[in-house]
Amino acid sequence: MTLSKLTTWNPIEARDMIRNNNWVKPTSGMANGYIQANLAVLPKEMAFEFLLFCQRNPKPCPIIDVTEPGSRIPSLSAPLADLSTDIPKYRVYRHGQLVEEKTDVSDLWDENMVGFLIGCSFTFEDALLQNGIPIRHIEENCNVPMYKTNIPCVNAGRFEGPMVVSMRPMPEKDVIRAVQVTSRFPSVHGAPVHIGDPKSIGIQNINNPDFGDSVTIKEGEVPVFWACGVTPQAIAMHVKPEIMITHAPGHMFITDLKNEDFSVI
Amino acid sequence: MTLSKLTTWNPIEARDMIRNNNWVKPTSGMANGYIQANLAVLPKEMAFEFLLFCQRNPKPCPIIDVTEPGSRIPSLSAPLADLSTDIPKYRVYRHGQLVEEKTDVSDLWDENMVGFLIGCSFTFEDALLQNGIPIRHIEENCNVPMYKTNIPCVNAGRFEGPMVVSMRPMPEKDVIRAVQVTSRFPSVHGAPVHIGDPKSIGIQNINNPDFGDSVTIKEGEVPVFWACGVTPQAIAMHVKPEIMITHAPGHMFITDLKNEDFSVI
Repeated sequence: MTLSKLTTWNPIEARDMIRNNNWVKPTSGMANGYIQANLAVLPKEMAFEFLLFCQRNPKPCPIIDVTEPGSRIPSLSAPLADLSTDIPKYRVYRHGQLVEEKTDVSDLWDENMVGFLIGCSFTFEDALLQNGIPIRHIEENCNVPMYKTNIPCVNAGRFEGPMVVSMRPMPEKDVIRAVQVTSRFPSVHGAPVHIGDPKSIGIQNINNPDFGDSVTIKEGEVPVFWACGVTPQAIAMHVKPEIMITHAPGHMFITDLKNEDFSVI
Repeated sequence: MTLSKLTTWNPIEARDMIRNNNWVKPTSGMANGYIQANLAVLPKEMAFEFLLFCQRNPKPCPIIDVTEPGSRIPSLSAPLADLSTDIPKYRVYRHGQLVEEKTDVSDLWDENMVGFLIGCSFTFEDALLQNGIPIRHIEENCNVPMYKTNIPCVNAGRFEGPMVVSMRPMPEKDVIRAVQVTSRFPSVHGAPVHIGDPKSIGIQNINNPDFGDSVTIKEGEVPVFWACGVTPQAIAMHVKPEIMITHAPGHMFITDLKNEDFSVI
C-alpha cells in the first residue's frame, strides 16, 4: 500500500498497518469518512463511576463504545479490532504520571481492564467543511486550540472537574449554520457550548490555549466553543488511577463507523 | 390542593403529595409538561453492566439519571427528591419474582443500591399531540400496546434479549411528521424503529400485544413502532437479580425536567 492511498484505506486495512507497526504516526486523514475515537482504559473498579461521569456529561464525553471487562474488542464499533494493538501509539499513566509510551499494550490489558472509546471532533469538523465552513486550525495546519473553562462538569463519585472546550473562529455569517450542522451530531459533542466572549466561560487569554495550538482570529470573526473529548481524560488523570492507558495525542483508534451513523437527522 | 389542580402542580408539590401517601395512584396527567420516568433499582454489583446495556441500547433504554451507589437522590433530574419515597407505588422483585408492592422502599435501599431513571414515551407523545398527530390509546383511554420483537438488543455482560416496542397507528399523511417530531428527542426513544408491516419485526398478531392494551387500527392507517422503556426492566428481570425494585406500572417518578430539555433542536 502506498501513502497516496492513505485516505482511501478502509478501517480494516488501516488497523492492519497499525497493528503490524507499519504505521506509528498520527492517524489524521486515514480512512476518510470513518469515525476516529479517543481511548481511555481504566481498572474495572473505576468503570461504573467513569461511565456514569460520561453519561452525566454527554457533550464533553460522548461514549462511542465500551468493552466488557477484560475484553479488548470494541464489539459495537469495530468487532474485528483489538484495542490493545490497533492504535499507533499508547501512553501509560500510573497514579496520574506518564510513565511510558508503547505501540502495544496487550501485556497490560488484564481481565481487570475496561476500554472506553470517546468521540472526537473530527466527525463534526467534516460536516462543517462539507457545509462550506472553513476550519482555521486545518488551514493553518496545526492542532485545534483547547481551553480549560469555568463550566463545571457534573460530578460522578471521584470524577469531577471543569469542562475543556475546543475553539473554532468563524465569520458571523457562518455561526447559525455551524450550530445547525453540529446539532445533528449530539453523540459526538453536538451543538456549541458557547459563542462569543471567551471571558464568559472563564478563558482569560484566547491566544494562550491550555492544550493544542493558538490560531489566528481575523477581524470580525467570532470564537465558537465546543465541548472537547480531552475533558474525560483530563478528569480521570486528576483521580490518579493506579493505572490508566490512553492513546498518544493524534494517534487515534479508527472505527468501522461512518460519520453519518452519528447523525440524528 | 384539589384534584382540579392536578395538571398544574409543580413537581415539588406533586412529589410532596406522593411522599405523604396522599396520592397512591397512577401519575398520568400530573405536573403537566414535566418529564416522568421509569425506575429500576439494582445492586451495585450489577450497575456497570446495566448502565453499559443502556449505553449500548439508547433507543429502548434512554437514561435520564443514575444515583451514586447508596444515594436516593436523583441529583440531575430532581435534586430535592428521594427516590425511595417519592413514587406512589413500588414493586419489589427477588430473583426475578414479584414479592411485594409498597409505597415506600427506604428500608430496602441500603448503601449497595443504585437507582436508574429511564425515559418514557410521555415526552414524545406530548410533542406528537402538539403537532396535531392524534394518539389512539389516549383517544381510547387505555394503555399503549407493547410487543416483544425479533430485534435483538446489544448484549452487555449478563444483560441480553429482544427489544420491546410500543405501537401508535396513524394515517399515512402523518407518518413523515411523526418521524421528524420524535427525531428531535433522541434521548427519550427518538425516531421510530419501524414503520409498516408488524411481521418484519417479528410481531405475529398486532391485535394481541404482549403488554398494555390492543387499540383500533383504522382502514388505511399505518402502524408506527418506537423502542419502549419496558425493555430494560424486562431484560433485567430475566437476569433474576437477588433484588430489584421498580415503579408499579403507571406510577412514575416526576422529575424537575421539562420536555423541551430533551430536544436536541
